[in-house]
Amino acid sequence: MNYQRPEITSMTGYVPGEQPQGGKFVKLNTNENPYACSPAVTRALQETTSEALRRYPDPLGTAFRIQAGEVLGVDPDWILCGNGSDDILTIVTRTFVGGGQAVRYPYPSYVLYRTLAEIQGARYQEIPFQTDWSLGDDFVSTTHHSPPTPDPPRLVYLPNPNSPSGTMISPDEILRLAERLPCPLLVDEAYADFAEENCLALVAKNEKILVSRTLSKGYALAGLRFGFLVAQPQVIEQLRKVKDSYNCDALSIHAAAAAIGDQAWLQTTRAQVVSTRTRLTESLRQLGFTPVESQANFVWAPHPDLAVRPIYEQLK
Amino acid sequence: MNYQRPEITSMTGYVPGEQPQGGKFVKLNTNENPYACSPAVTRALQETTSEALRRYPDPLGTAFRIQAGEVLGVDPDWILCGNGSDDILTIVTRTFVGGGQAVRYPYPSYVLYRTLAEIQGARYQEIPFQTDWSLGDDFVSTTHHSPPTPDPPRLVYLPNPNSPSGTMISPDEILRLAERLPCPLLVDEAYADFAEENCLALVAKNEKILVSRTLSKGYALAGLRFGFLVAQPQVIEQLRKVKDSYNCDALSIHAAAAAIGDQAWLQTTRAQVVSTRTRLTESLRQLGFTPVESQANFVWAPHPDLAVRPIYEQLK
Repeated sequence: MNYQRPEITSMTGYVPGEQPQGGKFVKLNTNENPYACSPAVTRALQETTSEALRRYPDPLGTAFRIQAGEVLGVDPDWILCGNGSDDILTIVTRTFVGGGQAVRYPYPSYVLYRTLAEIQGARYQEIPFQTDWSLGDDFVSTTHHSPPTPDPPRLVYLPNPNSPSGTMISPDEILRLAERLPCPLLVDEAYADFAEENCLALVAKNEKILVSRTLSKGYALAGLRFGFLVAQPQVIEQLRKVKDSYNCDALSIHAAAAAIGDQAWLQTTRAQVVSTRTRLTESLRQLGFTPVESQANFVWAPHPDLAVRPIYEQLK
Repeated sequence: MNYQRPEITSMTGYVPGEQPQGGKFVKLNTNENPYACSPAVTRALQETTSEALRRYPDPLGTAFRIQAGEVLGVDPDWILCGNGSDDILTIVTRTFVGGGQAVRYPYPSYVLYRTLAEIQGARYQEIPFQTDWSLGDDFVSTTHHSPPTPDPPRLVYLPNPNSPSGTMISPDEILRLAERLPCPLLVDEAYADFAEENCLALVAKNEKILVSRTLSKGYALAGLRFGFLVAQPQVIEQLRKVKDSYNCDALSIHAAAAAIGDQAWLQTTRAQVVSTRTRLTESLRQLGFTPVESQANFVWAPHPDLAVRPIYEQLK
C-alpha cells in the first residue's frame, strides 16, 4: 500500500552527482575544489572533544555567524547557518512556497530547484536563458503560460554564477530584478568565491534579496555540509522557525568558523583556480571548442561540430 | 512586507532546550548522556582527512548502514540515515502529510511533533495519555472532534519510551495499534537504548511501522547530529526522494559507524545509566515524590504536595 503524498509518488527524486567512495581518479563531475582545505580546519577538528559531541550544539551556530560576520562585514543576526546550502534552499522554499504555488528559475541551472518545488507540491516555471546567457523579459513577467501558471511566483531562484554556464548576472541587474519581482529572490552564490562580483551588498538594499553561500566549493569542504544565508533579520526570524532546530553539528560549526576565518587560504586557492580556469578556457578554444567565459570553477564548452557525449564517456 | 506562507507567520516555532555554550554546570535539561562517547568515535574523527572533507559525502551513508545493519540484524537497505533523528522526523512528515491533513501523537510527549505539523500546514490531534500513561481508545479511533478534525490521520508519532514520562507501550500493543491505524506509525525510539524492549522486529511484520533512532542519547553524540530510520525498503525508497541529497556529512557518517560498532561501550554505559536511574527513583521516592518507573535516561517525578517550579528554579 502507498501512504505517501501523491506528489511524492509521482516525482522521481533528485539524483545527486555520482560520488564514488575511494579509488583513483580525477573527479570533475560535481565541481569540488581540487585543493585541500585550510589547515585551520583540520586543526579545529582535532581540537574537538568528546564533551562537545556529548552536548547538543548551539542551534544558531553563533561561533560561525560571528566569524563570518566579521569577514563579510555583515551583522551576525543577518546570517542563518545551514547543513550545506541545499539545507538553506530547502528552508527558504518551505518558508515561502505553499502547495500549488509557483517557483521560478532560469534554465539550464541547478536541477535541485525543481525537486524542491516538487516535494513542496508546488509548480515550477523554468525560464530559458537567452542565447548569450542573459535573462529575458520573461524572467520578470508576472505570469507565465507555458506550462500554464497564471499566478505570480512565490520564490525565484537565481544561481549566480550560474551552473553549468559559469556566467553571471550583474548585481545592478539583480537589484532591478528584485524591485520588479513580486516575491523573494534567492541569489544562490555557491560559486561566488571564484567570481569578481557578488550580491552581498544588495541584501541591505532590498529585503526581497536573499544570498546563499556554501563552503563546499570555495573552501573545499563539500564533505562537511555547511552553507549559510544572508538576509534581513525579519526574514531570518521566519526562516528560523522552519529549520531543524539543531541543523548544524558541533564539528561543522567549529570547522566552518575556522575555514571562513582563513581568508589568506581562500585568496591563494582562488587565484590558483582562476589561473587554471584561464588556461583551460584558452586550451579548449585552441582545440576548437567555444568555451563561455566562466566566473566559477568549471567551464562550459560546447563544440560547433563534435558530439560531446562520446568525449564525456571517453574521459570517464 | 511579509512573503512567508501564512502558516509560518502564525506559528511560534519550536524552542529547543537551552544550550549554554561552555561554563561549569550539571546540565540535565535535554537528556544528554552524562558519559563521554566511545573512544572509537574520537579515533574515527582523528582519522578524517582533508580529502574526505573535500569531496561530497556518500548520499546514503552506506558505511553506517552496513555497520548498523550488522549490529541490529537489519538489511542495510531498510535503513535511512538522518542529520539527527529530527531530520528523520522532518523527512517522514513531509513524505506522508500534506497541507490541511492531520497528524496524531500522545500528550505530553515530544513538543517538536506539533511544530513539524505546523510547518507542513497540517493539523494535529494531541491525544492525552491515560493517568497510567497507557494509550486510550481515542488514540486508535478513526476520527477526532476536539479540535474538530473529521478525517483520519496521515501519520501517527509515538515516542517509546515516551518523553517526559519514561514509560513504554509494549511492542505487542504497538503491533495491534499499527494494524488498526489507517496510516504509518512512527515509533520514535530516541531513548530505546536505555529500555528493555524495542520495536525493531515489528518493522518486518507491518510496513506501516517505522522505527527512528538517534545517536544523541544512548551513544552520547548529541553534538554529532546523527539518527536513522528502520522501515521496509519500499517506504525507504519514497523517503529518499524527500531527504536532502547530502543530509549527513562525511565526519558524522564515519563517526556514527564507529559508535554503533562499539556495542561493548554501549552496554557498559547503559548499565551505568540504568543503575543511576534505579538509585535516583528510589531516592526521589524517599523524599516524598511519586516517580514513575522509567525506561529512559530520566525520571518523571511528580510530588503530591510540593509545587515543582520552585524546585526547578532552585536547581537551576
